[in-house]
Amino acid sequence: MRTLKLTLAYDGADFAGWQRQPGQRTVQGVLETALARITGVAVQAQGSGRTDSGVHALGQVVSFQTNATLAPEVFARALNAELPADVLVLHGEEASLQFHARYDAVGKRYRYVLHDGPWRDLFWRRYRWHCRQALDVERMHRSAQALVGEHDFRSFESNWPNRESSVRTITDISITRGAGKGGATGCPVAEKLFAPFSDETVTLEVAADGFLYNMVRTIVGTLFEVGRGNRPANWPAEVLAAQDRNRAGQTAPAHGLYLLRVEYPPVENSAAG
Amino acid sequence: MRTLKLTLAYDGADFAGWQRQPGQRTVQGVLETALARITGVAVQAQGSGRTDSGVHALGQVVSFQTNATLAPEVFARALNAELPADVLVLHGEEASLQFHARYDAVGKRYRYVLHDGPWRDLFWRRYRWHCRQALDVERMHRSAQALVGEHDFRSFESNWPNRESSVRTITDISITRGAGKGGATGCPVAEKLFAPFSDETVTLEVAADGFLYNMVRTIVGTLFEVGRGNRPANWPAEVLAAQDRNRAGQTAPAHGLYLLRVEYPPVENSAAG
Repeated sequence: MRTLKLTLAYDGADFAGWQRQPGQRTVQGVLETALARITGVAVQAQGSGRTDSGVHALGQVVSFQTNATLAPEVFARALNAELPADVLVLHGEEASLQFHARYDAVGKRYRYVLHDGPWRDLFWRRYRWHCRQALDVERMHRSAQALVGEHDFRSFESNWPNRESSVRTITDISITRGAGKGGATGCPVAEKLFAPFSDETVTLEVAADGFLYNMVRTIVGTLFEVGRGNRPANWPAEVLAAQDRNRAGQTAPAHGLYLLRVEYPPVENSAAG
Repeated sequence: MRTLKLTLAYDGADFAGWQRQPGQRTVQGVLETALARITGVAVQAQGSGRTDSGVHALGQVVSFQTNATLAPEVFARALNAELPADVLVLHGEEASLQFHARYDAVGKRYRYVLHDGPWRDLFWRRYRWHCRQALDVERMHRSAQALVGEHDFRSFESNWPNRESSVRTITDISITRGAGKGGATGCPVAEKLFAPFSDETVTLEVAADGFLYNMVRTIVGTLFEVGRGNRPANWPAEVLAAQDRNRAGQTAPAHGLYLLRVEYPPVENSAAG
């Protein structure tokens, strides 16, 4: 038995999210089907976390155990031949036998893409959230800095409480005009999948040790009110302090959200044994 | 009675082409449905030409006659409110009563977008033709110049003969790396709908007084063989001279093709009367 770690990109538009569900087309479902076809046995794939219906990924991480002896990169190519056109394995590697994509994750980075222009989207309607008003990006960025650090983020969590704790640490948040920081995924192939959009694009990137349910989308919905001038720049700080989901902005739609990368501790020297 | 002229962009991925057909989702079909909802009567919309299933447009032109008295730009906005997310009216204007989008067209410009990279496409899989080999763009461009001018293009026509004549005049053809020439549509909104792709993008643009059935896609399929080194640079000239469709390359897939703009004669001074 061995454990393999895969890095996946997918277009979430036609998926009912990550998690396998009977009668639904999910990323985990199509991946496990492809894994079973290659290995000849049923395989359970563990994702670093669920993504909701419509949410995309440029760097989802998956672990699974197998008796198959294929080299990791051969496995990745074989999977790409089996997978549908909206899922792509970017990378395969050997992991320690105990490695678990979800339990071992120590951080994640997300991107959220907005389109502020007078015309609705056409070719990117599944990949950006459109609003007609021009957003004040500087103001959004300044105002977002209040969220950096260790806080109880229950104001930004749907259906609180659904985890033991709603305390998380945001290490970095930025809002910029144009496509996001190149290199945020750490994977040049993934970066090429998602080339620069026009100047009517506003990109938020946020990294934390973990995220609560709908946390990124609620942060975006809250900063959106600041960006279009409906709320003062200190409002996100007030929402955070209130510890009440009803005080925050709307949950921004799923289709602007991308899981960029998942962080794990440096591999122990003896791990591969 | 008056005649209005509309400029349309659409994502062809989920349409069975332009032309209305029973039981099929077509661009003409959804447009005529929207026009009927706004005017309260059945309306026939004439496109500048059909586009096949999967083919996109950034500047399709449509004419129709109506008794409705709405200003053209109000008509355009009302249509955008009725149309599905994959069709967008960019512009509405008054035309002479006799104006006909198809019969009056004197030229067209198309773009074809290829993606030459080792990884298959993900977010743009419906919008570019992917090939794994790097294409020699300079060679394709040089070799394509043999097609400029007035020629019998039957070698590049599917199902020849299907028009009275297969003689057409290509006024301009270019193959470049990167997104196409900005401004080719003549419409800044359309240009924004289709922002720069990555450097693994190869863009062909071609203008002519008219195009035969599948002509652009066959030109692309032929230049593709030159670009990947399977055929010498003078091969397109030979194919043209042979006047035989069997000598040309494959018909490139529909999903890389965009109708950019349609040309009409300058409006006669007395036309609007």
